[in-house]
Amino acid sequence: MSEEFKRAALAYHAEPTPGKIGVQLTKPAETQRDLSLAYSPGVAEPVREIARDPQLAYKYTAKGNLVAVISDGSAILGLGDLGPLASKPVMEGKALLFKRFANVDSIDIEVNAEDSQAFIDTVVRIADTFGGINLEDIKAPQCFEIERILIEQCNIPVFHDDQHGTAIVTAAGMLNALEIQGKTIEEAKIVCLGAGSAAIACMKLLIALGAQYKNIFMIDRRGVIYPGREGLNEYKEEFENDTDARTLADAMVGADVFVGLSGPDLVSEEMLMSMAPKAIIFACSNPDPEIKPELAHALRDDLIVATGRSDYPNQVNNVLGFPFIFRGALDVRARRINEEMKVAAVHAIRELAKEPVPQKVIDACGCGNLEFGPNYIIPKPVDARLLSRVPAAVAQAAVDSGVAQLPYPEHYPL
Amino acid sequence: MSEEFKRAALAYHAEPTPGKIGVQLTKPAETQRDLSLAYSPGVAEPVREIARDPQLAYKYTAKGNLVAVISDGSAILGLGDLGPLASKPVMEGKALLFKRFANVDSIDIEVNAEDSQAFIDTVVRIADTFGGINLEDIKAPQCFEIERILIEQCNIPVFHDDQHGTAIVTAAGMLNALEIQGKTIEEAKIVCLGAGSAAIACMKLLIALGAQYKNIFMIDRRGVIYPGREGLNEYKEEFENDTDARTLADAMVGADVFVGLSGPDLVSEEMLMSMAPKAIIFACSNPDPEIKPELAHALRDDLIVATGRSDYPNQVNNVLGFPFIFRGALDVRARRINEEMKVAAVHAIRELAKEPVPQKVIDACGCGNLEFGPNYIIPKPVDARLLSRVPAAVAQAAVDSGVAQLPYPEHYPL
Repeated sequence: MSEEFKRAALAYHAEPTPGKIGVQLTKPAETQRDLSLAYSPGVAEPVREIARDPQLAYKYTAKGNLVAVISDGSAILGLGDLGPLASKPVMEGKALLFKRFANVDSIDIEVNAEDSQAFIDTVVRIADTFGGINLEDIKAPQCFEIERILIEQCNIPVFHDDQHGTAIVTAAGMLNALEIQGKTIEEAKIVCLGAGSAAIACMKLLIALGAQYKNIFMIDRRGVIYPGREGLNEYKEEFENDTDARTLADAMVGADVFVGLSGPDLVSEEMLMSMAPKAIIFACSNPDPEIKPELAHALRDDLIVATGRSDYPNQVNNVLGFPFIFRGALDVRARRINEEMKVAAVHAIRELAKEPVPQKVIDACGCGNLEFGPNYIIPKPVDARLLSRVPAAVAQAAVDSGVAQLPYPEHYPL
Repeated sequence: MSEEFKRAALAYHAEPTPGKIGVQLTKPAETQRDLSLAYSPGVAEPVREIARDPQLAYKYTAKGNLVAVISDGSAILGLGDLGPLASKPVMEGKALLFKRFANVDSIDIEVNAEDSQAFIDTVVRIADTFGGINLEDIKAPQCFEIERILIEQCNIPVFHDDQHGTAIVTAAGMLNALEIQGKTIEEAKIVCLGAGSAAIACMKLLIALGAQYKNIFMIDRRGVIYPGREGLNEYKEEFENDTDARTLADAMVGADVFVGLSGPDLVSEEMLMSMAPKAIIFACSNPDPEIKPELAHALRDDLIVATGRSDYPNQVNNVLGFPFIFRGALDVRARRINEEMKVAAVHAIRELAKEPVPQKVIDACGCGNLEFGPNYIIPKPVDARLLSRVPAAVAQAAVDSGVAQLPYPEHYPL
């Protein structure tokens, strides 16, 4: 980031008022009568109704459209464990994206918890307040257990976006990249650099979509994960590969797919050249990818390259997922966000990239022609069609898989 | 409440969208650049700054203007312990009032806690998120201990409005009523019917303003509180009166002041007639007062009568207090809301009632002439001057008493 950009980012957050989100009234509150309906004595009526039937909280309060973005600040962006307070700008940013992209009311909650159990207890106790919970920036491996228990104990959707949002958007782009390159997910040799929560969730979702364990090579700081290696937890063990490859360079030989969720410039020219023809590179380390797209393209002309950055083609951006996934889940009051809903989101995002792009979208991103192919495998965040496609698909999947508490609306509310 | 009003209250809460509050963006979020400042990669800058200096959370996030309205739902309005979810309409209503009256961003948090300690732990852990905490509808005596510990453990203002908001507004009206009746608080014989959190806080504040313990008669369900009586906790014991009076009727003989925070129609004609000349009646049970004002006035023409209702003169309404008290506390980043600030709020509210009322206010409440006197002892909630007077006084008191972390602004921000 340039110094000018850093200053602009600080100014954006500080001026004219601190922060990025606020509260607004959604009902009139001017006259004496308005106030007597909104508060005393009128408010006693919805209180009595909800005491009689808890589901009526969705009718008489903001709960049903309210998602908490909750973090303990233990893994903020790529910056590490800076604590809950320092994570607040990120969580407010996520809340801003929820509102901006899918009209989901969202507030951030930073939790100062001494351990996972304290975090879990806290979230469970405040869960009544919300219609859904988006966990964010919680370090691995604690995040897996935290999410699992919260899903069990809360009767609203709980979704760790660093895992599943990343996985869904990555998978959507990946399926399209494989199609364009004439490869199948079942046969693709996949190298995953990184073994954190996002990497593990990405590989699990690719498995659910047809990838084979034997074709996946997951690499952490100590190298390739293989059976019996030191430094493995149960989550990494799932991806043990009985291989002789020990290093990233070993694994990259003949690989069809590279997924990087690690750090800058870890893929060398030699590694890139050793990959299979028509290779696919998802270099998602942010802001500096595992290999610079211009370098990769200069070295080989048969690649598809995606990054996490908006200034290159094929941005793998979580904002393509979480606002719309929650929108769909909330619209049919899903009890949870299950695998069927995640897969539905993958396909809805993926299919949108195959449709002609409205001129308005092309103009808004100022990135020239957008036609399904190596330089356009995934929709742009500014594409308003996301809001009509992804939530509808997620909601339908919720209904079909039996976790929806409301029927799929005849006229989907978008 | 009429059936029509009940239906209107439910419709107000349900239509066109559920609830009363939502989230709004306070910064632009349209262009690619906006989003890169609001979220990745720009958001890393305020994160780093806050990690370096936690106070900068007030500069770069919404924390400093954000108050949580937190309840366990154990004492909802006069309805009792209906649980956290059922309290949500009340808490959203309070958040609405914060925004409407003092532009404080406020969200509700309902806490499902198995005991006081769990409630305290939960609030402490999420406190970083907020600039202040307004506790609400928590039953006595637990609320006293909960508030005390939270004030100790949180470094932001924690304020139980049922106690202190009620006390401040009551005291403001009471000082004016005493002045009009030619009585002094030091000599007034005060009967307090009710010994819950609001009653105890009211009497404590009147003591701080000059009332004498020996002149206060507090009455709970078992009658007058006297030394050695059964059924007393430490909070009630503070108001033991070494008297022969045992019943409300006994206590009311010769009383100058009646404060009711109890239930409907508990004050009989005989009791009213037995009070001292120029008596003051605060019949604040809602919606049905301890004695109907029209009955009281029909029986005696020397009274000042206040209630909790907007359809009678002299409404003792918490909304005259909490939005402006927090506004003032937030504006100078007070560490807590101390006695000096509460007393400053009492006097600011009180003094406003002595000033000529703008025609606009008179028109808005449609209640005819408003001139300081028996039928106008306290300002109307629609009086916009509250926002220029009360926060300024509270902020000044915070500065003067050493709990402000910012100086009193040369041009007070209102």
